Amino acid sequence: MNPLSSNAVPVRVGLLGCGNVGASFVQLIDARRADIAKRTGLDLEVTRIAVRSITKDRPVAIDQALFTTDAASVVHDPDVDLVVEVIGGIEPARELILDALKAGKPVITGNKELLANHGTELFAAADTAGVDLLFEAAVAGGIPLMRPLRESLLGEPINRVMGIVNGTTNYILTRMTEAGASYADALAEAQQLGYAERDPTADVEGYDAGAKIAIIAMIAFGARVVAGDVYHEGISGITESDIAVASRLGYRIKLLGVAELFGDEDHPEVAVRVHPAMVPVQHPLAAVRDSFNAVFIEGSAVGDLMLYGRGAGGLPTASAVLGDVIDAAMNLRQGTHAAIGQFARIPIRSIDELSSAFYLSVEVADRPGVLARVADAFGRHGVSIRSMEQEGLGTEARLLFITHLATERDVRATLRELRELDVVDRIGSVLRVVGQD
Amino acid sequence: MNPLSSNAVPVRVGLLGCGNVGASFVQLIDARRADIAKRTGLDLEVTRIAVRSITKDRPVAIDQALFTTDAASVVHDPDVDLVVEVIGGIEPARELILDALKAGKPVITGNKELLANHGTELFAAADTAGVDLLFEAAVAGGIPLMRPLRESLLGEPINRVMGIVNGTTNYILTRMTEAGASYADALAEAQQLGYAERDPTADVEGYDAGAKIAIIAMIAFGARVVAGDVYHEGISGITESDIAVASRLGYRIKLLGVAELFGDEDHPEVAVRVHPAMVPVQHPLAAVRDSFNAVFIEGSAVGDLMLYGRGAGGLPTASAVLGDVIDAAMNLRQGTHAAIGQFARIPIRSIDELSSAFYLSVEVADRPGVLARVADAFGRHGVSIRSMEQEGLGTEARLLFITHLATERDVRATLRELRELDVVDRIGSVLRVVGQD
Repeated sequence: MNPLSSNAVPVRVGLLGCGNVGASFVQLIDARRADIAKRTGLDLEVTRIAVRSITKDRPVAIDQALFTTDAASVVHDPDVDLVVEVIGGIEPARELILDALKAGKPVITGNKELLANHGTELFAAADTAGVDLLFEAAVAGGIPLMRPLRESLLGEPINRVMGIVNGTTNYILTRMTEAGASYADALAEAQQLGYAERDPTADVEGYDAGAKIAIIAMIAFGARVVAGDVYHEGISGITESDIAVASRLGYRIKLLGVAELFGDEDHPEVAVRVHPAMVPVQHPLAAVRDSFNAVFIEGSAVGDLMLYGRGAGGLPTASAVLGDVIDAAMNLRQGTHAAIGQFARIPIRSIDELSSAFYLSVEVADRPGVLARVADAFGRHGVSIRSMEQEGLGTEARLLFITHLATERDVRATLRELRELDVVDRIGSVLRVVGQD
Repeated sequence: MNPLSSNAVPVRVGLLGCGNVGASFVQLIDARRADIAKRTGLDLEVTRIAVRSITKDRPVAIDQALFTTDAASVVHDPDVDLVVEVIGGIEPARELILDALKAGKPVITGNKELLANHGTELFAAADTAGVDLLFEAAVAGGIPLMRPLRESLLGEPINRVMGIVNGTTNYILTRMTEAGASYADALAEAQQLGYAERDPTADVEGYDAGAKIAIIAMIAFGARVVAGDVYHEGISGITESDIAVASRLGYRIKLLGVAELFGDEDHPEVAVRVHPAMVPVQHPLAAVRDSFNAVFIEGSAVGDLMLYGRGAGGLPTASAVLGDVIDAAMNLRQGTHAAIGQFARIPIRSIDELSSAFYLSVEVADRPGVLARVADAFGRHGVSIRSMEQEGLGTEARLLFITHLATERDVRATLRELRELDVVDRIGSVLRVVGQD
């Protein structure tokens, strides 16, 4: 069955899971097999596929003889050289991957949940076995992100990474911005298009983005970061008015994952958070529209970098998996593996200690002296105001503030005090402003 | 002098050239040496530096004992394991690199002119010697572009690459767009800031961008492309009015390098060109401002990707060089080298055969029946009009057209015919429209 010249080295791939990404991967290998062999001397072939149901309809035609429901038999098959895991979730993926690594087989995974919770254990197992555990597909789908973080930037300390790493929420925010849609309507549209799940919590509350930014922090800073270390706020509270005000002031609202490294080499601290943010329209992240993803990297020597592309979808993600499979197969042939490095226990800095500029919308009584009393509350907590404007009159009056950098703790204290003022009817939105000069 | 634990493997780097990038590279190695050793087990040290003048003032303090004016002695020094070439130009860089490769020493170069003219010869020499010739710094400075093109996308046919790969012209166009500056004023400003040379021809006429897009085409398509294959138009003819009209119609004018692959596997053709283009404001390339660079890649499975960052500058470029040095040193230690692949002789498709949408500004007599006669000239050459609007009245009247896709040949024939019409006073700007849905 080998369509190639006999000197290509056969690489037999065992596939765990055959959903959208898995089926696209089988299709992509079929289409590219001859060309990959010509360019790399590797003859890639999917020889076993573990699925839950053998008879299920699949989007592409796949030889049924490859299927088994016994995933462990794929991992342990002596005719499988390399394992691709696209099942998702923690178990049985974790155990299967550990077994494959122990058997000396490189593993490619797109499983962000697993890496964000058990990454350290898995990478240590790969290191012990001396084989690759690659995962380009786990964060930002088709965007070649992990390799630049891991390799190109080895010589380069990274200070901060900010990412639009969830396509669903970016699509919703784009529709709210460009079509004036409400959050509910934009979400419904995303669900119709298949971008959002029926229960959209993982996307809209920032859990999906949180797992991804944890993995990014882990690789960028060599730190043990797990999903539970990430502070979350989602986008379900963003109103049409927030979007309109942001546009008028020259900002776009984006759900950002932010990973930062503070301190010096002897006393480093890491912070990881996901929240909606106002990004100046001139910032490259502001131009990332629809369901696209992008990751903005601030390096000390290289300066600002941004990597942009499809964060999800069968073919883009399968393309990332295939890139990793080729890498791992070439390493396997040469008896080497990618160094993922050690993960240090670096303290996590609490959200309270972080500083941002803030946008605050404060609904107030429209009468003389109100601004002085409100401004006084900011001043007492050391939060200094960069700009203020009044919107609306009478019972509709709102003061819109943008602050200079202030700690989360001081801003919260200011908000508590504002809520107690008789001239303040209500605190509206509170959003961080990110990427300002 | 080794500051490290004794088990780090020493890697002695010979540096050819010590201008802005070279000096930044020495500085960066000094600053990062201990950390790189900890992460990679490689102890990098610059042991010899070839310069034209030993006594010249340099931006960073470098031990004068490292300097020599005899570049060949650096290449042949048995105490040099790896050579970094940042002299620029064709000779003596070409001969020094060939000598280093023949001596089995990996070479890192940032020399776009050399690669765009003699790349095939140099890569063949590296292949024969079985060592690395890496060149991330040659195109788009600090942006990790070559590795994704070469490796991540091995499993991925690329159809088109479009790049803003010259920071000087992007700065000039940004100032014209955002500050309403004239071309002359924006150029003078770029010269004051040190972005543009006193003789700006290489930048503004697209020769610098042409060398870079030739290298991109070579790597992306595995094709023998040289700088002479690239069609050029520069930005010196772009007027304030062009910028204003583009903004009003929802476009940004950018100088783009475009590399495309046509045909099928048996009959491929490559096209490479540099010219100003109107890019819709929603396209990610439109948001690339100031002196930043970005490369937009259209892959068949992965979809659209964009890589954005600093295209020039001492530290960003030195950071790219350092990334390559680490890679080459790790490969050297493991006895492997990066496969650059073969470069096929693929026919170059002439600019005449390429299709674009076009923007044309036609100064006309302002009287009834003019549009019909002008539109007729388009129609006779099969160029169909997507939108038209009149601007100005009387002797200032202009018709602004945007066409559907049309070949360059047909558009030129249309322009010839328009020039001969008595109702046409003058053809103003003719710009390609790129990135439209």
